[in-house]
Amino acid sequence: SNTDRSWIIFVAGLVVLLPVALALAGERRMRMIDGFDLGNSPLEFTRDAVEGRTVLMTTTNGTGAIAAAQGAKEVLVGAYVNFSPVAAVLRAAARRGADLTFICAGHEGQFALEDAACVGRLVRHATRRVAGATLNDAALAAVQLDRKFGDDLWRLFETASHAQALANAGFAADLVACATLDAHQVVPVYQDRQIVRLAAPAEA
Amino acid sequence: SNTDRSWIIFVAGLVVLLPVALALAGERRMRMIDGFDLGNSPLEFTRDAVEGRTVLMTTTNGTGAIAAAQGAKEVLVGAYVNFSPVAAVLRAAARRGADLTFICAGHEGQFALEDAACVGRLVRHATRRVAGATLNDAALAAVQLDRKFGDDLWRLFETASHAQALANAGFAADLVACATLDAHQVVPVYQDRQIVRLAAPAEA
Repeated sequence: SNTDRSWIIFVAGLVVLLPVALALAGERRMRMIDGFDLGNSPLEFTRDAVEGRTVLMTTTNGTGAIAAAQGAKEVLVGAYVNFSPVAAVLRAAARRGADLTFICAGHEGQFALEDAACVGRLVRHATRRVAGATLNDAALAAVQLDRKFGDDLWRLFETASHAQALANAGFAADLVACATLDAHQVVPVYQDRQIVRLAAPAEA
Repeated sequence: SNTDRSWIIFVAGLVVLLPVALALAGERRMRMIDGFDLGNSPLEFTRDAVEGRTVLMTTTNGTGAIAAAQGAKEVLVGAYVNFSPVAAVLRAAARRGADLTFICAGHEGQFALEDAACVGRLVRHATRRVAGATLNDAALAAVQLDRKFGDDLWRLFETASHAQALANAGFAADLVACATLDAHQVVPVYQDRQIVRLAAPAEA
């Protein structure tokens, strides 16, 4: 693998990250942190709450995984809610011969089903009919999970332990938001320790 | 989870480990180590080569994973070649309410498809109709991989990168041995830094 051509794609099946925002946000054990302005619920990140502001965010798994990927040439943030625009950027990169690495956010340090299924969907769309594309075993396994659940994101979330933990913690409405495929036409990228919109529209 | 009830099950889809043997064995980058008596090929571990002897074994992934599991109450070594006897012991443990943890050997530090598929098969057999059995997301994903490949171990090995690497390195005959379901009716356990046959037949 040529690191100069390496892309890292960070995938959190359940996380909705908006690109521009404010103040302190995050969670520990799924709950908003004392003294913070926002938790981790996508429903809190309204236009009123975040427009024109910078959000400082900390979560149990996702933000650490993103920070760990900062050595890569490009770091994208993908989920079901922005699936198609992210998949389009990845597909263009794959056609140029880029190496794509997917990092799953996980849940409490463990494998999370919805992350892997979302990666499988991205892998399928990014590499379909791309000559010379090869998948490692983990990517092949992720594709199988996507094939199992297909577009039935609700059944996926009913099966996944993280989603069920959120529902039990009172965040069932978040799951509805997270299961809305392509709700947001944005491609967030991680640059200089900030998540911003992808700069070059020509890449999409 | 009650650690007193915890079992660790180590799974290497491709490894055949015989319980009693001799001298130095192992591999680095799939090749026998200079000065060693045996490599990692199951076909070298004949009765003549190992009967009545103790084998000191080192491999890139498997032996380290087994050593890391030594704090558990019981550590079993499972693969397709001894699937049914290991599954029977696990099923008895699951019925007694034991926690089962599966560790995949992997290949060069990476996820290996055949390990996860073998775990999925063990999980299915160990927990079927066991009241109160719950699976975490990784176990659910492993079950999906087993469902995908079913009994067609040859297709699984044709897909898995580790198996293909072994075939390319001249060990295609090993794959035939590793794809032989239930070739060995043994339950190897790891105790006091040795892999031996399970002592108590009443447990099977």
